[in-house]
Amino acid sequence: MAKIKRTIETDRPFADALRVREGFVLSDLDPRSTPAFTGKKDDGKAALLEHDDELSGLQEKLYAASVGGNSRRRVLLVVQGMDTSGKGGLMRHVVGLVDPQGVQITAFKKPTEEELSHPFLWRIRKRLPEPGKIGVFDRSHYEDVLVVRVHDLVPPQQWARRYATINDFEQGLVDDETSVVKVMLHISSAEQKDRLGRRLDRPDKHWKFNPGDIDEREHWPAYQEAYQAALDRCNSESAPWFVVPADRKWYARLAVQQLLLEHLRALDLQWPVADFDVQEQKKRLART
Amino acid sequence: MAKIKRTIETDRPFADALRVREGFVLSDLDPRSTPAFTGKKDDGKAALLEHDDELSGLQEKLYAASVGGNSRRRVLLVVQGMDTSGKGGLMRHVVGLVDPQGVQITAFKKPTEEELSHPFLWRIRKRLPEPGKIGVFDRSHYEDVLVVRVHDLVPPQQWARRYATINDFEQGLVDDETSVVKVMLHISSAEQKDRLGRRLDRPDKHWKFNPGDIDEREHWPAYQEAYQAALDRCNSESAPWFVVPADRKWYARLAVQQLLLEHLRALDLQWPVADFDVQEQKKRLART
Repeated sequence: MAKIKRTIETDRPFADALRVREGFVLSDLDPRSTPAFTGKKDDGKAALLEHDDELSGLQEKLYAASVGGNSRRRVLLVVQGMDTSGKGGLMRHVVGLVDPQGVQITAFKKPTEEELSHPFLWRIRKRLPEPGKIGVFDRSHYEDVLVVRVHDLVPPQQWARRYATINDFEQGLVDDETSVVKVMLHISSAEQKDRLGRRLDRPDKHWKFNPGDIDEREHWPAYQEAYQAALDRCNSESAPWFVVPADRKWYARLAVQQLLLEHLRALDLQWPVADFDVQEQKKRLART
Repeated sequence: MAKIKRTIETDRPFADALRVREGFVLSDLDPRSTPAFTGKKDDGKAALLEHDDELSGLQEKLYAASVGGNSRRRVLLVVQGMDTSGKGGLMRHVVGLVDPQGVQITAFKKPTEEELSHPFLWRIRKRLPEPGKIGVFDRSHYEDVLVVRVHDLVPPQQWARRYATINDFEQGLVDDETSVVKVMLHISSAEQKDRLGRRLDRPDKHWKFNPGDIDEREHWPAYQEAYQAALDRCNSESAPWFVVPADRKWYARLAVQQLLLEHLRALDLQWPVADFDVQEQKKRLART
């Protein structure tokens, strides 16, 4: 734990450093910076592994509380970011270290015809985590004010109303004992160019590439503007945004792990107390 | 790879050794045996880790084929076993090593009122894996001929019809490009007693214990009989059963990993070929 303790100034250093505050300007944040962490790449990778057990343990306690203690407490991690910003790697290298039984990942793709025939939160609600689980959204309801806004997929007056709808929705989740952790992985346009280039260089990565990814790069400024609006308008006290500089993959992974840890620690989870007489059950078992 | 290669006699040694064949008698199989593996515990643990990358790689290829090659191929791992047989540990230590985005685990609990109002396969069908995914069932439709049969939860003539229904259902999955891998974790009654006792000894494991678990031990012979019937009657050529001796957790985990590997290797998966001109896309990217 040594490497990360060096960097800790408060109980929630990553949440403090990465939280979007009044007047936040996305373009002012350096995507190569490493807020709340003074170490280098190797330190960051080591810190990630050092905290693996704690994250797994807290996840198990969260789950145990739902099974043995009837708790409704659950966590929803919302991950947004431009193409190649590292959402998939995060699922694998952070979320993947937790017991898969305690996690429910949903990757929201282009909506289907059926999904489009319903209000935009319909498909989101269906994938909310059950009590005791960590739900993870790889893209989310925010696409409905990001890609939809950039490409005018619905009239402006329609997407404009969605910010308030999202705030109400998220407040409802928080009121229902859900810890909502919203993360934007922030990469630079130059870094995206490099990452797309590497996909084109490797035949085993071609399946991840789509020529449309390059078309989307033309809309980079419009996307940044749409992100800025989402960060400004859906940043409530109970469900704030965290913007994670993500040009360095190792940092982004560590930061999201630490954000999860800080939120889980704050729940002060306890093992549920047995609702049976342990000695009596031991005697019963002995007789079988 | 050395340790496991020593033990390999055919291309599919675990599938060959563990497959249920005509005349198989469950009670004749020693739950402490380690078919197809001559190593000890440390060798088994090392072999599990050594094959982690291959399993991850094959899973990625399976997923890539669905995204980039329109393949409908998917895998369904069905895991059955008595309480404490190690289903949860398998999810964590074998399935958990694969990219969580490629896996969909469902733990089937006691059916809800809504589920009971539908045919027994209704809730199962809703959780079948999508193309490219590895679906994992922690308990399954087999509960409808196991706990249901042992406790007469439906009339005998009703559960008796289910074996044929299950065979038709599974044939349909196989016809729809699903590799069905059915595993029974086989523990002894004495081992279960030890494992329940250890749960009672540890306050952080009390939440996993239920006094009903001891009541169920009285039905041990009836459960073994119900398992034998399921193994006999739902053991088709295209969706055979594999019985994994599970008193040694390390062996059971290795065996299920190897069964998955052997099935995935047999699919001869290839990276999909790009459906775009790679050089042209590199030029387009360079211009952005």
